[in-house]
Amino acid sequence: MRDGILVINAGSSSIKFSLFLSNGDGKPLLSSKGQVEGINVAPHFIAQGPDGTVLSEQHWPADSDLNHEDLLKHLIDWVEDHLDGASLVAAGHRVVHGGPKYASPVLVNDSVLDELDGFVQLAPLHQPHNLAPIRALAKVHPGLMQVACFDTAFHTTNPKVATTFALPRQLTEEGVRRYGFHGLSYEFIARRIREIAPEVAAGKVVVCHLGSGASMCAIDGGKSVASTLGFTAVDGLPMGTRTGNLDPGVILYLLQQKGMSAKEIETLLYKRSGLLGVSGVSNDMRVLLESDDPHAAEAVELFCYRVNRELGSLAAAMGGLDALVFTAGIGEHSAPVRERVCAASAWLGISVDAAANDRHAELISADDSRIPVYVIPTNEEMMIAKHTRAVVRQLAEAAQ
Amino acid sequence: MRDGILVINAGSSSIKFSLFLSNGDGKPLLSSKGQVEGINVAPHFIAQGPDGTVLSEQHWPADSDLNHEDLLKHLIDWVEDHLDGASLVAAGHRVVHGGPKYASPVLVNDSVLDELDGFVQLAPLHQPHNLAPIRALAKVHPGLMQVACFDTAFHTTNPKVATTFALPRQLTEEGVRRYGFHGLSYEFIARRIREIAPEVAAGKVVVCHLGSGASMCAIDGGKSVASTLGFTAVDGLPMGTRTGNLDPGVILYLLQQKGMSAKEIETLLYKRSGLLGVSGVSNDMRVLLESDDPHAAEAVELFCYRVNRELGSLAAAMGGLDALVFTAGIGEHSAPVRERVCAASAWLGISVDAAANDRHAELISADDSRIPVYVIPTNEEMMIAKHTRAVVRQLAEAAQ
Repeated sequence: MRDGILVINAGSSSIKFSLFLSNGDGKPLLSSKGQVEGINVAPHFIAQGPDGTVLSEQHWPADSDLNHEDLLKHLIDWVEDHLDGASLVAAGHRVVHGGPKYASPVLVNDSVLDELDGFVQLAPLHQPHNLAPIRALAKVHPGLMQVACFDTAFHTTNPKVATTFALPRQLTEEGVRRYGFHGLSYEFIARRIREIAPEVAAGKVVVCHLGSGASMCAIDGGKSVASTLGFTAVDGLPMGTRTGNLDPGVILYLLQQKGMSAKEIETLLYKRSGLLGVSGVSNDMRVLLESDDPHAAEAVELFCYRVNRELGSLAAAMGGLDALVFTAGIGEHSAPVRERVCAASAWLGISVDAAANDRHAELISADDSRIPVYVIPTNEEMMIAKHTRAVVRQLAEAAQ
Repeated sequence: MRDGILVINAGSSSIKFSLFLSNGDGKPLLSSKGQVEGINVAPHFIAQGPDGTVLSEQHWPADSDLNHEDLLKHLIDWVEDHLDGASLVAAGHRVVHGGPKYASPVLVNDSVLDELDGFVQLAPLHQPHNLAPIRALAKVHPGLMQVACFDTAFHTTNPKVATTFALPRQLTEEGVRRYGFHGLSYEFIARRIREIAPEVAAGKVVVCHLGSGASMCAIDGGKSVASTLGFTAVDGLPMGTRTGNLDPGVILYLLQQKGMSAKEIETLLYKRSGLLGVSGVSNDMRVLLESDDPHAAEAVELFCYRVNRELGSLAAAMGGLDALVFTAGIGEHSAPVRERVCAASAWLGISVDAAANDRHAELISADDSRIPVYVIPTNEEMMIAKHTRAVVRQLAEAAQ
């Protein structure tokens, strides 16, 4: 019997899904993917094949009154009609925060869900949206196993010194520390490095996950030892609309001198800053690179500069550097960003082959580069499918 | 006629002074130093010779009702009695913030003072205390030239990309950017490097100013290109009681989830964090290094780790590293801190001579260290005296 694994990645206004069906070897292969977007506004459902072919699409009017649960039901119904003879064995969810507790994926039951609810205050903008479809799915499909896969889990190998802020101990002990995110992406990349470059997989690798959310991770011998995202998803690198790291004194200034409220500051830091705030043009690196506006150029320069500074800092966290990897939207597709980062990192022994970089080759470093530089497409959904399948198998084996 | 220069470094509850008298060559030499402390509480005046010999000391009762101006008058009277035949030509003041405008020391007049007042909101905890004695001195000694020397000025050579936060442009344009501080110390060190190691002065140097306030600066060819202190004095490295750099999302959490006020958060970040907050024992590195408390050891480890991370980041800002310098209280006197930082930075080509390090030698790197490592005592007061004298001379020459 072939297995079907449904992967859910839910945000504030959309639910993305991917359906993986096992092949003959039992390995998950992407069968279809899609999303419900415009939830609470004008919902829109689309499902596509692995190559992007539209398989199904549906629009609902703005006054359709469909809630989260109704739309998830529509999604599940569609998935069950497209299992191609396989059996849906589990749903795997991307959950941003596993708190200090969860170092690996977990089968969700009521008590686990309560615990994950307790981490909402650590990620109030993301966690509730990740948990909502778990609850909804439990109602519309009560028998289905659900597995939570955490963006924080890969970083639980960080040494304590890398996760500690210089705050009073009681705050650290109540959970105000660095967690790091994008862990499912980093884990996928760490596994891919073992496949494509086993000679560096045991070494010191910095992975640049550069998308509209962006971070970097120091992976030593396959394990995360430090990363740029911290307690929340607004630390580290500048992102599409997020500041990244910021002098905490700036927040006090905005509160005390500008009279801004916490909510206004939150919106400023998460929605109006980053590439968008600096350029005044766009949050999209592609638009900025094609723009003639000098402010767009400044935003690109700042982004690359900060990647560079963090590369030095993360190499310092490992005491060296053996390989550099670019991934995610900008990392996989923006040759100019990779080129600038690598040029400024020549001091680390990095040299890029311009032609290989331009064609987004897997290995873009020059032959004489001391540090190999890779472009590796990430696949967080595949990582979630593999984790979910592993949890299901362990349970099946334990039950025997 | 020998010149006397009075250097004033004023904080919230103390006014430190140093009196420099020119020698035969016209170079300023420290003649006496001291402070008024306990202002508004129980004032205490002390003056010492260059070797620490107490020259004068006076205590006032808690109900003495002496204000800032009265105490400054006492200080000036003492100084005028101890000019040893020299003539007091100017007072030089340490002023933390020169804003975006002042790249060098400036003769203070009413319009300059108004401008410096405008930077109070950029450094509300320091700037008012720096400006108060300028006003008081103008009253008690109206004819005396006064020169403001800025902690930000040395960093005005930073490229824009190093000073820009990824905030909306209008905030950057109104002055919310990195300024960097401890500039008088870094300038003194940059000059000393030219004297003691001219071969590295043209290269890429990271200076670690590690005191109860701590920061690091990347100096390329004698010019500051990046530093760890930002918009305020709470960014960058953990300090005695300050957090240093912190995920801005932590502040939102403290506001939104913990219900703390801006004032409470300010106190937390400036007064209750850093070495004190992590150790729960002390804000003093000497106490922590001698403590058996594992929390004290954690604070020391975190401090050294963060110095290390910033060292990688600052080397990245320059695209390399040619020399490393330690200065200020911890930097000059804590061999264990220097040893740990250097050991973790072996990847950069740093190797320390343990014996030289233990005796706080000027050059502490091993013979085979690719990067020379120096311990150079800083002297911000001397830097202020030199600047003040230079401004006075320029005016005298311009008047001829």
